[in-house]
Amino acid sequence: MTSLSATQASYPYQNEPSWSKSEKIVARAAFDAALKRELREVMREAKQKANGIKEPADVWELEHYLTERREDIDRKYDYRYSQLTHVFGRLLHEGKVSEEELLGLREDKLKLIRSFAKFLAEDTAA
Amino acid sequence: MTSLSATQASYPYQNEPSWSKSEKIVARAAFDAALKRELREVMREAKQKANGIKEPADVWELEHYLTERREDIDRKYDYRYSQLTHVFGRLLHEGKVSEEELLGLREDKLKLIRSFAKFLAEDTAA
Repeated sequence: MTSLSATQASYPYQNEPSWSKSEKIVARAAFDAALKRELREVMREAKQKANGIKEPADVWELEHYLTERREDIDRKYDYRYSQLTHVFGRLLHEGKVSEEELLGLREDKLKLIRSFAKFLAEDTAA
Repeated sequence: MTSLSATQASYPYQNEPSWSKSEKIVARAAFDAALKRELREVMREAKQKANGIKEPADVWELEHYLTERREDIDRKYDYRYSQLTHVFGRLLHEGKVSEEELLGLREDKLKLIRSFAKFLAEDTAA
């Protein structure tokens, strides 16, 4: 993990990196952009699935899909600084956020983000 | 309630009317026709709502609508002979089944069905 600064030492979770003001701006923008893309995808997919409805089972399939997407998005988009490196790690792994969008974050965070993305990639491959 | 026949007297729920073979055929057909219409309505409504999606909130509104419709339909379409006069009473009240479709049921059942429909109408009006 990162070396502890004076601020971090007084923080209850000592392993969590602190986020500077400019990092928070980068994080918020990347987070919002990813969420927006994800929501657009659900909107597109919902329209497509609805247009393809031929029988009642297709309706409940659509409902199930929407419930799953909502729960997944709720779980995934957790904007707490204590969670954010995991959040971005997952989004990076899923291709929902790019490394470019994270430029401006300190190297300690990028390392944590990349390492969690790598962990998920290996976990998926296993 | 109805007067008890010999068969009904041995039946655990003495107030329930028994259903003859021909009544069961009428009931099944009316039940299935109403369910089919209801499901068609949900399919049509789902397509319409999906086409009208403009923002993420509309997607979750569609999900919520579908969940409610599914739960409502599950609750309403209960094909147990012990429930059937209530089921048809509700469908009659909601205009989901017509009196014509129920022709062939004995008067004791039609009375129960109409009386429950009336009760719901008064309940709604109150």
